[in-house]
Amino acid sequence: MDDSIKETLIDIVGRQNFTDSLIDLVSYSNDASDHYHRPEAAVWPASTEHISRILIIANKHCFPVIPRGAGTGLAGAAVPVYGGLVLDMCRMNRILDIRIADRLAVVQPGVVYNDLKKALAPYDFFFPPDPASGNVCTLGGNVATNAGGIRGAKYGVTKDYVMKLEVVLPNGLVMQTGSNCMKSASGYDLTRLFVGSEGTLGIITEITLKINPKPMAFKTGLALFSSLRDAGRAVSDIMHSGIIPSVLEVLDENTIKVLQDHSSVNLPDVTAIILVETDGYTRAETSFQMEKVIEIFRKNSAADVQIADSIEEADELWRIRKSISSIVAQIRPNNVSEDVAVPISMVPNLLTGISKIVRNHGLPFVVFGHAGDGNLHPKIMYDRSDPDQVKQLREVVTEIFKLTCDLGGTLSGEHGIGLAKAPYMTLEHDQTAIDVMHDIKRLFDPNNILNPGKMGLEV
Amino acid sequence: MDDSIKETLIDIVGRQNFTDSLIDLVSYSNDASDHYHRPEAAVWPASTEHISRILIIANKHCFPVIPRGAGTGLAGAAVPVYGGLVLDMCRMNRILDIRIADRLAVVQPGVVYNDLKKALAPYDFFFPPDPASGNVCTLGGNVATNAGGIRGAKYGVTKDYVMKLEVVLPNGLVMQTGSNCMKSASGYDLTRLFVGSEGTLGIITEITLKINPKPMAFKTGLALFSSLRDAGRAVSDIMHSGIIPSVLEVLDENTIKVLQDHSSVNLPDVTAIILVETDGYTRAETSFQMEKVIEIFRKNSAADVQIADSIEEADELWRIRKSISSIVAQIRPNNVSEDVAVPISMVPNLLTGISKIVRNHGLPFVVFGHAGDGNLHPKIMYDRSDPDQVKQLREVVTEIFKLTCDLGGTLSGEHGIGLAKAPYMTLEHDQTAIDVMHDIKRLFDPNNILNPGKMGLEV
Repeated sequence: MDDSIKETLIDIVGRQNFTDSLIDLVSYSNDASDHYHRPEAAVWPASTEHISRILIIANKHCFPVIPRGAGTGLAGAAVPVYGGLVLDMCRMNRILDIRIADRLAVVQPGVVYNDLKKALAPYDFFFPPDPASGNVCTLGGNVATNAGGIRGAKYGVTKDYVMKLEVVLPNGLVMQTGSNCMKSASGYDLTRLFVGSEGTLGIITEITLKINPKPMAFKTGLALFSSLRDAGRAVSDIMHSGIIPSVLEVLDENTIKVLQDHSSVNLPDVTAIILVETDGYTRAETSFQMEKVIEIFRKNSAADVQIADSIEEADELWRIRKSISSIVAQIRPNNVSEDVAVPISMVPNLLTGISKIVRNHGLPFVVFGHAGDGNLHPKIMYDRSDPDQVKQLREVVTEIFKLTCDLGGTLSGEHGIGLAKAPYMTLEHDQTAIDVMHDIKRLFDPNNILNPGKMGLEV
Repeated sequence: MDDSIKETLIDIVGRQNFTDSLIDLVSYSNDASDHYHRPEAAVWPASTEHISRILIIANKHCFPVIPRGAGTGLAGAAVPVYGGLVLDMCRMNRILDIRIADRLAVVQPGVVYNDLKKALAPYDFFFPPDPASGNVCTLGGNVATNAGGIRGAKYGVTKDYVMKLEVVLPNGLVMQTGSNCMKSASGYDLTRLFVGSEGTLGIITEITLKINPKPMAFKTGLALFSSLRDAGRAVSDIMHSGIIPSVLEVLDENTIKVLQDHSSVNLPDVTAIILVETDGYTRAETSFQMEKVIEIFRKNSAADVQIADSIEEADELWRIRKSISSIVAQIRPNNVSEDVAVPISMVPNLLTGISKIVRNHGLPFVVFGHAGDGNLHPKIMYDRSDPDQVKQLREVVTEIFKLTCDLGGTLSGEHGIGLAKAPYMTLEHDQTAIDVMHDIKRLFDPNNILNPGKMGLEV
């Protein structure tokens, strides 16, 4: 990127909103994945017009443009693998409108997830998807990666709540997609084409989200199982039962061991733990749901079942689930958090299959995740400075993806494809679908300036 | 379409599954809209392979191919406006799989909506979208038009339940889109591109639908209002309240008059009726919701509120809503059922605006619809044999679309665009969005063989 281009960018965003200093570029060379590449410059655009003008320049001079939210992505989608210009969206962080009567909120892409949550709380409304990085991640990033969360089985994921988008196309044109209406059957669903497109088709500059009334009552419970099969059958029976718990988290044997060895949490020697939450309008209905769930746990010979009778007791049960990631970080200097999903009934096969794979390669690992929607997160610990461990890790990840797709699953439940899973797209999608995705990318972005190298879209 | 092509088609589907007899072609020249055009031939394909071979021929000889379900569409999407070949999907009517533990059902496009409903009932599961034509319409048609229904406000519409599709592209290639997983963030959302595409991008040959556990308790109520404003405020207050009723139907003054004059239903002179249903796991929670709703009705000075205490009483309240369409048919030989939607808070403005428009043109009409998601159905009655009434009708419809879009609404809540609304697409969508839709159509179907003339995609 030569100086004349940099000067043009400075003209657009202002000198204080442009950087090509090494320290900044280093910080923009990575997200929460283990992928790295340094961009040539970064800007902090403040408006749709800024972005439109920037993309026109980028298209003219064919340099990559990489949109970036908070950089919490785990798949490397925000890593500027071919250099180019990072668009840090953090300045476009205004909540533009909250229309409770229309059940929608209008936000800029740089709004932090928790800031919307806080803004909706006084109305007793909420935005149901709940990514673990909610206190830092941005809604633009959530939409670009179709972020999920712990309550997906009952409430769905980001894609289920995006009603309308303003998007700047690579040619600089600004487009409105979708509708402010709860229902619309009017033309192709362009909105959904951009949700989960990881910044490869256009830059999202405004987002209209559907919001829900907050549930008023919650119940939290925990079940311990000595047999993984029993735990799996319990999950499957719950999905049969007519009850959809708002949370149905599973922790595997390794996770339990790690918690025993490295945390103050006091856990017996069991093979699996299931954390469950039911919610609703009334205590009566949440209890009704929880009783059904407990009945199923008992029927599947749960070793123990604990129900929280107070918020404090619920927090105590939640502490078990929430302490995992921080503990894992202590065991080896690096870890990779995978994100595969399978049809719900395949969860036990995936759990046992993953354990078998990773054990063969001798790396420490834990597996936990959202059993209610079949989305598991194997966390594999390794030391990046040891080439053998890196090699083992790569083999483990490849085998996990193969197993997942053999079980009718998907490479990513909620983290997206990015760089990390780009090489594996053909394991999940047939060649015609891959070709169609390539064609759509070329249609929108013929010069491949938008976040190149991601999602396996390179021909 | 010359005889050699017809012979080739007969070779593919068998002589008994091909027709070009006048009587058949006349019956395929129309759907439930007031649009007519005769095709040149029709076939009853039995497999994905049949359809693939047919599309290859169609692409070679450039004749239109129009997929057709039960022909219940109200927007003319199944009318072969440029002639060509009708693909009647009725023979591909098998329910291929029901996987309760995975919360999904796999069906062929010709499966009748109610047949899936019946097949799911023994498991206490259901497919939530509920089009009024459910006892005859096909799931393929539901997907192609993104069909809605009376419970959209709480349960969403067809698009919210389509997980996976098998599609035959115009070049004859077969593609699998989506995933059997509850969650997937893996590549562009090709599934959603086909939902609501009205057969213009590909032929859907297999559908995987997400299914839900059936609610176990219901409560039905009815509120009468002397002022439309009060009724509108009540709807808006309900959406504020945290309650999402499973049904929130509004009937306007004209509908009430029509019911008074032409049915045995005994109704007082009021300006608006709201029919409400709440559902859930327990009686306690449905009653809790209904009490909140009644409180809001009273606060907004409802003239009367009736709650059904038995299924019989509930059926009686439902009879009011369900008898409208049949009664309307008695008043004038023809009627057009429109399908506009606006943001929920705009429902009163839309109701009053529509009344004003239609009155000025002196045609009888009723307005009713799904207040909970802002989707109203003005039914305008006329006599097709009277050129002046036809002219008046066209003007009325155009003005209603303009008003709707001025209120931030959409041309179609659940019927689709088809032929009826094709000329109005630019009222709702900006030129860039229209151009992108055209580009996508050309990308998939460069020879424009698939259902040409629909959705305003003609350049």
